[in-house]
Amino acid sequence: MMPSFSDRLAEAVRRTSPLCVGIDPRWESLPKSIREPHGSTNLANIAAAFEQFGLRVLELVRPFAGVVKPQSAFFELIGPPGMEALQRLLIRAKEMGFVTILDAKRGDIASTATAYADAAFAGLTIGERSLPVWDADSLTINPYLGRDAVEPFLTAARAAGRGAFVLVRTSNPGAGLFQDLVCDGRPLYRHVAEAVAGWNASTLGACGLGDVGAVAGATHPRELEELRLAMPDVWLLVPGYGAQGGTAEDVKVAYRADGLGAVVNSSRGISFPFKPDDPAWETKIVDAARKASDELRP
Amino acid sequence: MMPSFSDRLAEAVRRTSPLCVGIDPRWESLPKSIREPHGSTNLANIAAAFEQFGLRVLELVRPFAGVVKPQSAFFELIGPPGMEALQRLLIRAKEMGFVTILDAKRGDIASTATAYADAAFAGLTIGERSLPVWDADSLTINPYLGRDAVEPFLTAARAAGRGAFVLVRTSNPGAGLFQDLVCDGRPLYRHVAEAVAGWNASTLGACGLGDVGAVAGATHPRELEELRLAMPDVWLLVPGYGAQGGTAEDVKVAYRADGLGAVVNSSRGISFPFKPDDPAWETKIVDAARKASDELRP
Repeated sequence: MMPSFSDRLAEAVRRTSPLCVGIDPRWESLPKSIREPHGSTNLANIAAAFEQFGLRVLELVRPFAGVVKPQSAFFELIGPPGMEALQRLLIRAKEMGFVTILDAKRGDIASTATAYADAAFAGLTIGERSLPVWDADSLTINPYLGRDAVEPFLTAARAAGRGAFVLVRTSNPGAGLFQDLVCDGRPLYRHVAEAVAGWNASTLGACGLGDVGAVAGATHPRELEELRLAMPDVWLLVPGYGAQGGTAEDVKVAYRADGLGAVVNSSRGISFPFKPDDPAWETKIVDAARKASDELRP
Repeated sequence: MMPSFSDRLAEAVRRTSPLCVGIDPRWESLPKSIREPHGSTNLANIAAAFEQFGLRVLELVRPFAGVVKPQSAFFELIGPPGMEALQRLLIRAKEMGFVTILDAKRGDIASTATAYADAAFAGLTIGERSLPVWDADSLTINPYLGRDAVEPFLTAARAAGRGAFVLVRTSNPGAGLFQDLVCDGRPLYRHVAEAVAGWNASTLGACGLGDVGAVAGATHPRELEELRLAMPDVWLLVPGYGAQGGTAEDVKVAYRADGLGAVVNSSRGISFPFKPDDPAWETKIVDAARKASDELRP
């Protein structure tokens, strides 16, 4: 039997580091040596450049990170050819042994939520056959629509041996507009955290953590520590480290005593630490991934 | 100059009815006469069937509805070929004079939100050129990530003459888990409504309504009425009418005195009022659209 999502995540973190490498390609930031041979006359050429760059990032960061997180939005902006590039990157990442997080922040109700979840995990099922779509190990989801909007994702994840990360406290400056509203004596994000802890409780793996994770930003270290205590069995996906200003010290409050419990994402900081015309861009990615993995190890 | 999004919506509602036809294709529900020639051996065949069905629905409902809302999730489940079908449906709907709402409930922060918004509206911009992706008139968005996660969508919509519908009070039974939490004396969804009214205030068109709408479910008629009063200048996109249980009487509280102010969505009730082997499926769609438009007119 395949290990649970949480146990695969634990294995990836122990083997490498808590670093998760975000793959957020932008045309204007790509190395010129990749951009120029493809050109930008149509979306298919741009998608091919994204794919070539993404595959190279996977190879370069592999010694330092066991988890990668492609950001769906940047591929969607390249239209259907971009989504094909995303699909091929996810397949290749899985073949290379990465645990994949599809960062799509999906959220909808009932059968619509199931459609998103099937796209992310098991694929389209027709009779006995499944036609895979993203085939990701996990998906980020948005809880605003409530209980019956989150549960189809969790049901589909469980059936396919995958995981989900629910947005709890995000890393952006304006996150507090709704997340910090105080309801019944506690901020909204604590209510969401409590629901996540409840959904996660029945999914614990051998590592002692479960398959329903939470997104909690590194830019709010006090809240991050508070959430670690409030959800001791929940994997935290921590954005905001690096380019967004969170430091390695800030995020370590998200680790449990056993060193597990958090994957710390860096996107631009790892995959774009260079100017497009820098011939040494690959070395810069390797150096950035090495440095981040070193400073993030518990 | 092209009329504003809100004025185009007003024109569509006045010309036809407040009905918005949701396009949520599911393989198992398609007419056999469309399914069988395509077969389901791969995602490309299924996507071609979705496109053929969707185009036929557009033709059939055109006399009764000026607004259509494809649900992104059902196309995403068919992978990149499904997204191509979605793209072609949106182009054709626009050519036919429909106002389009891409129901994707997107939500992310900063440049990631901008990427989703550009995909929805203006397309990918490289230098002076724009490469369109979905080219929709409007997009549904999720507010949980807060101020600076919503604003990139509104900025991109304004620059391209498009609109956005922000989730406020959704139609699902479990919506209340977070939306009904009472914060500072009012439920969370009222705080979101207040933010939406603020974002909308500077976008009013000649019709007296603005380009920043709100999603407010027909399954909560009391809240719908309350939201109509709280946001007098805001277009409401009302799901939950028809198959989900909301009646025409329930939704009419969402109209302003001038008969404008709400578009009422029906998905399955209009596009799937038949069994797959029914040879009269087209007549059933026409009848369902006629009946809904008649009973929804103010």
